[in-house]
Amino acid sequence: MPHHSYHLDTNRKKVVLVGSGNWGSAIARIVGDNITANPQLFEPTLNMWVFEELVDGRKLTEIINTEHENVKYLPGYKLPTNVVAVPDLKEATKGAHILIFCVPHQFLGRMLPQIKEQGLDPNCCAVSLIKGIDFNDKGVVLVSNIIRDALNIDCSVLMGANVANEVAAGDFCESTLGCTGVQEGALLQQLFHAPTFHVNIAMDPNGVELCGALKNVVALGAGFCDGLGYGGNTKAAIIRLGLIEMKKFCYRFFDGIKEDTFFESCGVADLITTCFGGRNRKCAELFVKDKGVAWETLENTVLNGQKLQGTWTAKEVYTILDKTNAIADFPLFVAIYRIAFEGADPKTITSF
Amino acid sequence: MPHHSYHLDTNRKKVVLVGSGNWGSAIARIVGDNITANPQLFEPTLNMWVFEELVDGRKLTEIINTEHENVKYLPGYKLPTNVVAVPDLKEATKGAHILIFCVPHQFLGRMLPQIKEQGLDPNCCAVSLIKGIDFNDKGVVLVSNIIRDALNIDCSVLMGANVANEVAAGDFCESTLGCTGVQEGALLQQLFHAPTFHVNIAMDPNGVELCGALKNVVALGAGFCDGLGYGGNTKAAIIRLGLIEMKKFCYRFFDGIKEDTFFESCGVADLITTCFGGRNRKCAELFVKDKGVAWETLENTVLNGQKLQGTWTAKEVYTILDKTNAIADFPLFVAIYRIAFEGADPKTITSF
Repeated sequence: MPHHSYHLDTNRKKVVLVGSGNWGSAIARIVGDNITANPQLFEPTLNMWVFEELVDGRKLTEIINTEHENVKYLPGYKLPTNVVAVPDLKEATKGAHILIFCVPHQFLGRMLPQIKEQGLDPNCCAVSLIKGIDFNDKGVVLVSNIIRDALNIDCSVLMGANVANEVAAGDFCESTLGCTGVQEGALLQQLFHAPTFHVNIAMDPNGVELCGALKNVVALGAGFCDGLGYGGNTKAAIIRLGLIEMKKFCYRFFDGIKEDTFFESCGVADLITTCFGGRNRKCAELFVKDKGVAWETLENTVLNGQKLQGTWTAKEVYTILDKTNAIADFPLFVAIYRIAFEGADPKTITSF
Repeated sequence: MPHHSYHLDTNRKKVVLVGSGNWGSAIARIVGDNITANPQLFEPTLNMWVFEELVDGRKLTEIINTEHENVKYLPGYKLPTNVVAVPDLKEATKGAHILIFCVPHQFLGRMLPQIKEQGLDPNCCAVSLIKGIDFNDKGVVLVSNIIRDALNIDCSVLMGANVANEVAAGDFCESTLGCTGVQEGALLQQLFHAPTFHVNIAMDPNGVELCGALKNVVALGAGFCDGLGYGGNTKAAIIRLGLIEMKKFCYRFFDGIKEDTFFESCGVADLITTCFGGRNRKCAELFVKDKGVAWETLENTVLNGQKLQGTWTAKEVYTILDKTNAIADFPLFVAIYRIAFEGADPKTITSF
């Protein structure tokens, strides 16, 4: 049936993964396999843009393409053989129909114009797996919006309680796909859903993405509780109050937020994981125990120089609340900010 | 102003606490103080019915009334001096306007007729602090309903992430008051709310009470995850799926359930505390690790013979789901039941 297969061929989507860190490599395992399993929907190769670097004198792209393993960022887990590492961004993204973004969001400013330059398919869409938000004079800037604006394409998001190594190990978890279109949602679900990686669709991309950023602020509060030696009652109360303020923040500053989003993996589940594990919680605990230690010192000693998302987000959220006269409506976010940056007693985490 | 104070006097509420275990004694500290702080609202003495027993040869009521400490069930914490231990149930509850119930729910069948017998004030109301549900041929029977039906009075509930010893220690926490009337809610809030014990009102007594019982089923699932050595992603997913099935169960079998209830302390916060601490989680972990150990053995060795709420509730919930052809709609509750009672592989906790 040549006509039939010709028809299918022309509609197949070329998927490109922009990013190859810990999380990017973990999701490449799932996406690579799903592409192979659905040849009628997707082109067989998954280009993965890799920031080229040398590992023991060898190029990382070369290692990935011969040994099928990202030995630097996800050692111990094989990548499917249809995942092809490409160091040149324009070459990697050429002709893409679905662009998956999984890079530190500070990189986007340089990368997006290059992707735009080489010309995108008019039906191309994007999915952001980047957790974090940005801020400008007008308020919150979502990473998905930066992508939308720079590339002039639609951008969905995938967020949830998804610690990369556990996903790579095939531990069961869930994730939330935030998108605006039903058809796009169904297609992207086919790309990401797996037996041990359950993807639910939420028609609320803003809410899904905001949860992924704001939970890190709450995790600081949970860490302060741990540092103070508080028990389960208090920590649960802080997490709950944090969830309420996350909701309130979303509704206050964005349109189209849906209540159900907070019951999804990106909401309550990711919040729980982050408040019990996670680097923001850990550093906040040490911040209380080592009285007066600077956040930068913790980033250097605990995180090998990586930056904390929670402190930065807490500061920017506070700025927005201050500007919009909303301080009184977000007592927990404000208390966390003041403990983190104004020398307030950590015990004020519960004074409201 | 004699007329004024006479008027106030006649409207003051006599509060009686039926129960004096660990949680009962902890709440007596708060309620006793709140009564003293609000003399215009409440009569000054808090009768506390105490199941009489001997402690080192002395009567427990006598110890409480002289040393102001429940040395058996909440040692180390003083009770306010206006808390008076009374061993006779009829004497303790005579003339009550507000009856606070905090006893094992198996005791109610014997106690309620005695309370009824001595005649209740027509405006008397009750608050149940009892976590647990009962079941009969028709389905779920709420403890509050048993009280309502037996005494023919209204019954509110107070539930939340409230580990008794942490409440007694004055650690900050929250609790949810589930009631039907606005006025009753406001009065009861005055009775329970304290600077370190924040009481929110939810106009959804059924939802509040059901959360308190169903969370124990989810805690078994969380414990199975711990026993299997699963990481944070999986446990968060199980907790989230549990919350979704708790909601679904409430909506399916009860009227007047409100979405917001699940965001209150009785919902998400109590669920978190129970799934990370708590005896149901602990025993479920051991159930997986010591393959094939009987629940009764765990109750005897880990809980000194006390009964697990989670296993019993899981069984009764399963019976209802089976009877109502709802098995397919509650895959997590069903998986937990089958692991706990039908020898299913604990790994099936994530097979759906």
